[in-house]
Amino acid sequence: MSLTVVGSVAFDALETPFGKRDKVLGGAATHFGLSASFFTDVNAVGIVGGDFGSDEWEVFKRHNINTDEVEIVPDGKTFFWSGRYDYDMNTAHTLDTQLNVFETFNPTLSDNSKNSKLLFLANILPSLQKGVREQCPDAKFVAMDTMNFWISSMKESVIDTIKVVDCVIINDAEARMLADEPNIHKAARKIMDYGLRALVIKRGEYGATLFTKDAYFFCPAYPLESVFDPTGAGDTFAGGFMGYLAAQNEITEENLRRAMIYGSVMASFNVEKFGTERVDALGYPEINERFAAFKRMTHFDDIPFERATTA
Amino acid sequence: MSLTVVGSVAFDALETPFGKRDKVLGGAATHFGLSASFFTDVNAVGIVGGDFGSDEWEVFKRHNINTDEVEIVPDGKTFFWSGRYDYDMNTAHTLDTQLNVFETFNPTLSDNSKNSKLLFLANILPSLQKGVREQCPDAKFVAMDTMNFWISSMKESVIDTIKVVDCVIINDAEARMLADEPNIHKAARKIMDYGLRALVIKRGEYGATLFTKDAYFFCPAYPLESVFDPTGAGDTFAGGFMGYLAAQNEITEENLRRAMIYGSVMASFNVEKFGTERVDALGYPEINERFAAFKRMTHFDDIPFERATTA
Repeated sequence: MSLTVVGSVAFDALETPFGKRDKVLGGAATHFGLSASFFTDVNAVGIVGGDFGSDEWEVFKRHNINTDEVEIVPDGKTFFWSGRYDYDMNTAHTLDTQLNVFETFNPTLSDNSKNSKLLFLANILPSLQKGVREQCPDAKFVAMDTMNFWISSMKESVIDTIKVVDCVIINDAEARMLADEPNIHKAARKIMDYGLRALVIKRGEYGATLFTKDAYFFCPAYPLESVFDPTGAGDTFAGGFMGYLAAQNEITEENLRRAMIYGSVMASFNVEKFGTERVDALGYPEINERFAAFKRMTHFDDIPFERATTA
Repeated sequence: MSLTVVGSVAFDALETPFGKRDKVLGGAATHFGLSASFFTDVNAVGIVGGDFGSDEWEVFKRHNINTDEVEIVPDGKTFFWSGRYDYDMNTAHTLDTQLNVFETFNPTLSDNSKNSKLLFLANILPSLQKGVREQCPDAKFVAMDTMNFWISSMKESVIDTIKVVDCVIINDAEARMLADEPNIHKAARKIMDYGLRALVIKRGEYGATLFTKDAYFFCPAYPLESVFDPTGAGDTFAGGFMGYLAAQNEITEENLRRAMIYGSVMASFNVEKFGTERVDALGYPEINERFAAFKRMTHFDDIPFERATTA
């Protein structure tokens, strides 16, 4: 099934306890697209400035990502984000945000994109997400991200958008804030009740949780001794998740579970190097080996228990 | 295989956002013993005062826990702990601790206890734990708990004790403090290097992790919409873990994994009511149903992935 992602393409400046990069390729659509490209053909919709160079385009080309709908504003500058992480890699400290051309982003999809069966709405203004979703009435499975900024400043608009998608992929703090409920399971139930088919709550080093109407599935994080740079981990997760689903014939509970694992696999690679470096250079043997590791990490045989003596 | 637990038997006063109890049966050996009793015969070693009444003894009797080695000091008072939890149920705020007879606790084991194949050293002074462990030279599998207080005030003594046991069962903050290392996987490796066969790191609402020499196993927490009272959850986990192992013929990797699940199952019941109330009234159908739920929460089929189109 065809897959389209709508979101930011950016330059990032990154600082972590392990090193520094002044300008690397980043953005939600970039991380998502790269990750999903290992599973299916990806259509990226975004906007960049004239400063977006051949090295950057080459990354998309190398992974066969269709960039026909990445608009170029020749006299504009590409979205720029600068952030720092301390040893607690769960929190990004934003140093600078320059929206640049992204400020005018208001995507009108081509017929090709409009016919996508799967659609991922990366983190942008919720009303824009809703507008894109409405351009794709035939999409079979639409997922969205959002962020604390929109939830605190325009919660109703976020909820209006949630009501027209099938799946929300957010982190636990966002879920709690959105539902105004500290218990994550109660929060999930409240968000599911907006009419979702699936809700994915990402919990950083603690893994990710899938809520569906009748089931609950938990995927741990891959045990990493060092997280080098977490930027883009969430979008890389979403790319593996949606990419795997797009490569299947149907969105079933079993496929959603495997999609959670592939999302976690891809995110675990993303954080091992700066920006897109690690995923860009990834191969299938590594992906499949890590998928198998997730199975070893979580599976057990259920031999029925029998009390040896009477209780 | 026979199982002995050495630790506190206590009265607790508890306050949570959901209610209050002035005096309930508590203590590490109590919670552990009750939980383990569903899997095997348990021998409890502890100390109580003359205020320990027939209602309390009745709980132990009901679960066939051998209390021959729970010493009674007729003119002494039983260990008393008073604590409060706010909505963040991960942190207990201690209001009062009265060691009472527990201050003089220095167990000399009977021949029966000395011959136990499995031994759990609940959280007491590390040198006392070591002394007990040395009284049981033939034990096949010895596990211990500890706490931040001992790690910060006598780390060397804690480490000396770790060196003579097979398994440590602690929470993530304790593991980080013990290893002086923020990354939990690096911390685990450092602690394993003291010669452990298994290390269990409990992570509250995020589940529990088993580290062995060659493997890593992750068990999520059971999804509860309300945690009523977390007191004793760690010892209840340890009781299910060690109780299940004691009921097996061998300590294998597969048995350790199932033990993790049974530990999590029992802990998930413990927090649903105050003190021992929920586990005391538990039955096998509920335990087995929840075990099955853990399998549904974590398992997936690994259909090999094939890229539909060329990358």
